[in-house]
Amino acid sequence: MSGKEFVYEEKVRIYDTDAQGIVHYAGYYRFVTDAFEQFSKIKLGSEFPLLTNRVWFVVVESHARYYKSAKLGDKLSTHVNVEIAGRKALCFNFKIHKGRSVICDGKIVQVAIDSKTWKSVVLPKKLVARLKKR
Amino acid sequence: MSGKEFVYEEKVRIYDTDAQGIVHYAGYYRFVTDAFEQFSKIKLGSEFPLLTNRVWFVVVESHARYYKSAKLGDKLSTHVNVEIAGRKALCFNFKIHKGRSVICDGKIVQVAIDSKTWKSVVLPKKLVARLKKR
Amino acid sequence: MSGKEFVYEEKVRIYDTDAQGIVHYAGYYRFVTDAFEQFSKIKLGSEFPLLTNRVWFVVVESHARYYKSAKLGDKLSTHVNVEIAGRKALCFNFKIHKGRSVICDGKIVQVAIDSKTWKSVVLPKKLVARLKKR
Amino acid sequence: MSGKEFVYEEKVRIYDTDAQGIVHYAGYYRFVTDAFEQFSKIKLGSEFPLLTNRVWFVVVESHARYYKSAKLGDKLSTHVNVEIAGRKALCFNFKIHKGRSVICDGKIVQVAIDSKTWKSVVLPKKLVARLKKR
Repeated sequence: MSGKEFVYEEKVRIYDTDAQGIVHYAGYYRFVTDAFEQFSKIKLGSEFPLLTNRVWFVVVESHARYYKSAKLGDKLSTHVNVEIAGRKALCFNFKIHKGRSVICDGKIVQVAIDSKTWKSVVLPKKLVARLKKR
Repeated sequence: MSGKEFVYEEKVRIYDTDAQGIVHYAGYYRFVTDAFEQFSKIKLGSEFPLLTNRVWFVVVESHARYYKSAKLGDKLSTHVNVEIAGRKALCFNFKIHKGRSVICDGKIVQVAIDSKTWKSVVLPKKLVARLKKR
Repeated sequence: MSGKEFVYEEKVRIYDTDAQGIVHYAGYYRFVTDAFEQFSKIKLGSEFPLLTNRVWFVVVESHARYYKSAKLGDKLSTHVNVEIAGRKALCFNFKIHKGRSVICDGKIVQVAIDSKTWKSVVLPKKLVARLKKR
Repeated sequence: MSGKEFVYEEKVRIYDTDAQGIVHYAGYYRFVTDAFEQFSKIKLGSEFPLLTNRVWFVVVESHARYYKSAKLGDKLSTHVNVEIAGRKALCFNFKIHKGRSVICDGKIVQVAIDSKTWKSVVLPKKLVARLKKR
């Protein structure tokens, strides 16, 4: 990832784990969602995924690889970088670090929609400008 | 519980468990919610908790006691009984059995609201009639 | 609650909500769990709910009343106070505030167990001393 | 998918949804996990993901594309097909149907590990034989 990445720190909680004693794979969703939300607020000045009453983001693709497991109490830092993916979508790339190791990486592609018609829409100009200005 | 109770069977799944190897306490929410929903459909002919576009049910009180733990793969049966609690609310009593033992019991009180104004409303007459007819 | 209470702040995330647009009742579990964990770490110098390899806490009772709903993006502060409940249990009382309103309150009773035998045990003396010293 | 696929039916519950009124993307995890578990039990005679006390499966990769959204009450059928992916891993392919449309598809790759050492192990011969025999 480039120097444009954003880092968010979190701790593994009891509700992130399952009977294998580790974070279950959908549990990483919490870390990634929190990092995206914080990124949007701080870097873009926007709430996420409900940008406005009309413009929402919905996930159209997710991909992740899991290299090592995370346990209760582990401190994780989620590194996020966002790219514009065409006129209507954003691609959020992430790497989750535990100490010096990357334990999980992947991407989430989200499309902007109109919350009333549920059809995809062009990314708001203001959002695109802020993403490019970083 | 009386002869009016309704029984719903389910199995403990990996996502119901946490690092203690047992169902975490909010996990019982899934079993209870599923039992209430199935009860509503079969006994009351209604969807739950969104009865109609206008009439929804929202939780105003929950109480549970946990006697024994449940593990991955355990078969649980949730016994449900519903009482009318005043003009605007229903009280769902539940007992979760593992084999012959009751491992958890409690109640969930839900109030009928108007989904547009988010104010409490009187229970629909049809619903009350069906609850009394059981 | 007394002056011994502990306050933990959090924000409602997309995964705390359901199709009613509000935090679902088991969702409050996250706020309460996080507050207890933070309390244990800061005030008791202990990890929670897995105090040590041998001494774990398991929930034996939960009770909550919900007065108002919480929505996506709301800032909530969870006020926690802990009492010793007999020789083997702790009672965690909580009040969740949204601005000046208490929107939810209740308690969670947890019993100390030996993680190997899964039997209840007397509360560790050190823990009791720290709770009394506050 | 081939004629070897397995189909599992489920309904969207209130806890699968979020404030957008649809199943959130990690929510599909429940449908896929349940389908895999049922497949393992019926077709392979094995519990999943904890095959035995020693042999567990852990997720090393997940990929999904989301074409249409699913709403509260929707009936979904999850079609699963399993391939052997090298000596130590299985690849679970899935397609989630709502009526005649495929609304989500993807794969989950899982590696067999020894639960004591947490190292990858060769797939049990019996499991491989049953997978090939289908």
